Amino acid sequence: MKFTRRFMFAVLSVMFLPFPAAFSQSDPLPSWNDGAVKQSITDFVAKVTTQGGADFVSPAERIVVFDNDGTLWCEQPIYFQAAFALDRVKAMAAQHPEWKQQQPFSALLSGDGNALAEQGEKGLLTLVAAAHSGMTTDDFATSVSDWLATAKHPRFNRPYNELTYQPMVELLTYLRANGFKTFIVSGGGVEFMRVWAEKAYGIPPEQVVGSTGVTKYQLDAAGKPSLLKTARVQFIDDGSGKPAGINMMIGRRPILAFGNSDGDHQMLQWTMAGSGPRFAGIVHHTDAAREYAYDRPSKIGQLDKAWDEAKAKGWTVVDMKQDWKKVFP
Amino acid sequence: MKFTRRFMFAVLSVMFLPFPAAFSQSDPLPSWNDGAVKQSITDFVAKVTTQGGADFVSPAERIVVFDNDGTLWCEQPIYFQAAFALDRVKAMAAQHPEWKQQQPFSALLSGDGNALAEQGEKGLLTLVAAAHSGMTTDDFATSVSDWLATAKHPRFNRPYNELTYQPMVELLTYLRANGFKTFIVSGGGVEFMRVWAEKAYGIPPEQVVGSTGVTKYQLDAAGKPSLLKTARVQFIDDGSGKPAGINMMIGRRPILAFGNSDGDHQMLQWTMAGSGPRFAGIVHHTDAAREYAYDRPSKIGQLDKAWDEAKAKGWTVVDMKQDWKKVFP
Repeated sequence: MKFTRRFMFAVLSVMFLPFPAAFSQSDPLPSWNDGAVKQSITDFVAKVTTQGGADFVSPAERIVVFDNDGTLWCEQPIYFQAAFALDRVKAMAAQHPEWKQQQPFSALLSGDGNALAEQGEKGLLTLVAAAHSGMTTDDFATSVSDWLATAKHPRFNRPYNELTYQPMVELLTYLRANGFKTFIVSGGGVEFMRVWAEKAYGIPPEQVVGSTGVTKYQLDAAGKPSLLKTARVQFIDDGSGKPAGINMMIGRRPILAFGNSDGDHQMLQWTMAGSGPRFAGIVHHTDAAREYAYDRPSKIGQLDKAWDEAKAKGWTVVDMKQDWKKVFP
Repeated sequence: MKFTRRFMFAVLSVMFLPFPAAFSQSDPLPSWNDGAVKQSITDFVAKVTTQGGADFVSPAERIVVFDNDGTLWCEQPIYFQAAFALDRVKAMAAQHPEWKQQQPFSALLSGDGNALAEQGEKGLLTLVAAAHSGMTTDDFATSVSDWLATAKHPRFNRPYNELTYQPMVELLTYLRANGFKTFIVSGGGVEFMRVWAEKAYGIPPEQVVGSTGVTKYQLDAAGKPSLLKTARVQFIDDGSGKPAGINMMIGRRPILAFGNSDGDHQMLQWTMAGSGPRFAGIVHHTDAAREYAYDRPSKIGQLDKAWDEAKAKGWTVVDMKQDWKKVFP
């Protein structure tokens, strides 16, 4: 191989190109419609990455946090992790003959919706706990990937991990390309998300913050260690738990946060209360045709108080129907 | 500015230089004496970073974890965080006149060592809790930096954060230069360490795992949020808590772990039980002249069971006196 002068000039011209300029030729957010919302995002990114600018933020401090359910992927008609838990309990039933005589299991297994509804939230939590405890962390991760490989969303008839929001995936990529460090901060179980978050969002396990259960370290007869998932809750990363989770697991205040519900309200407040440039974004589900439309009265992903504060303070509210060219990949 | 041919060749020759070769000319671990221990480290790094080699590990999986007290910095004559707590309680005493009549505070404040010893471990924990709760996370961080700016180690008469181990700091730098992601996994308080760990070790807050307390989110009259540190323990990242902490906060099994005591035993076991190439290291404190010498019977940093397993399984045991050219920077 011979380095010609022309080749060297080509290499050098790429080498000395300022990094953001590489993006100027193509739209980094192609699934976002042009408008005030998209502009607020690109303005913020330009502002904090402009070296020498008044609002420049060093890359180390470009911590950004995203809620997951309803912000990065769909959360209707039920949280996908709840769908996993119900399917999983059914799959585990063969090993648990006693469940046939035991509520809430028998209601679920017999497909008796009314009886299941009668078990209420406590019944649902019992089912979720059964799917999430009594096995090692490795076995749990396997059960999540097995489920994703086979289960389909009831309305869209696609694997659940294909129901991520394409515009948000582009936003994550755009932020990382500009030196931001992207984190998930979700009320969902951290071990559930880590199985698929890296492939879906490009977010590695160590940047996923979520609710956690107590695990128990144990050695088998051969001295091989494992972590047993117990049914005891360690930490709930939701509502006012989100700033606490950020403090515990990240240890720096984010400069940008995105959520979609009142469960993200305190995380948005916490982010905006820091000094220097700040960005708070809310995904408003307004698109019953392509996805779902819900806000104030919704049982899942209720958006009420956070929406009021967003309006009062001029936070960015994404109107899914207006602002997104497409929803799913 | 004009690009001469010579300049371009110089630039290109640097560009096409393979990355590890940049290190071959100077020793990346100058404070380590040559020998089997140093060799075991450089062999491991060479093995897992050799592209196409049987033991190659992708950069994303190059997660490495280090205990802090006794592994990255000194832990004698008492854990530095305990020294902070005792000093801090003294500094807070003016705001707490009631402490004069209250144990264990009065014993500490009157300098009565015997009375303080009588208060036992419970007394010490009460003092530690007083220094670590009842203030916001921001105020706590300030109290830690204020202390570091003024307090001196009783024997070495240097600020505590200068008593890091120079060979270990070099090891962290060397690993990062080879694409490893360095984490602290310590029994110490995560908020205490994050104040100074980035400057001391180059490890950012989000890569510090440690023990945590429950924080409470609160808004003041003006709507400004803060996190109040309560006296309730959230998670103890020590002993069998270390694999649990790694699972909770990192979510991947490390390929290298370094500790110095039985509190690191399970973390070392957990690291070694994964598949592929693995490295377990223990710092053995053998140097009473330059630092301290302690192991099996020590109350602080006891090294007993982990040492036995290290011998049985051929883990790397660093003999501080033999293997380190210098101890502190």
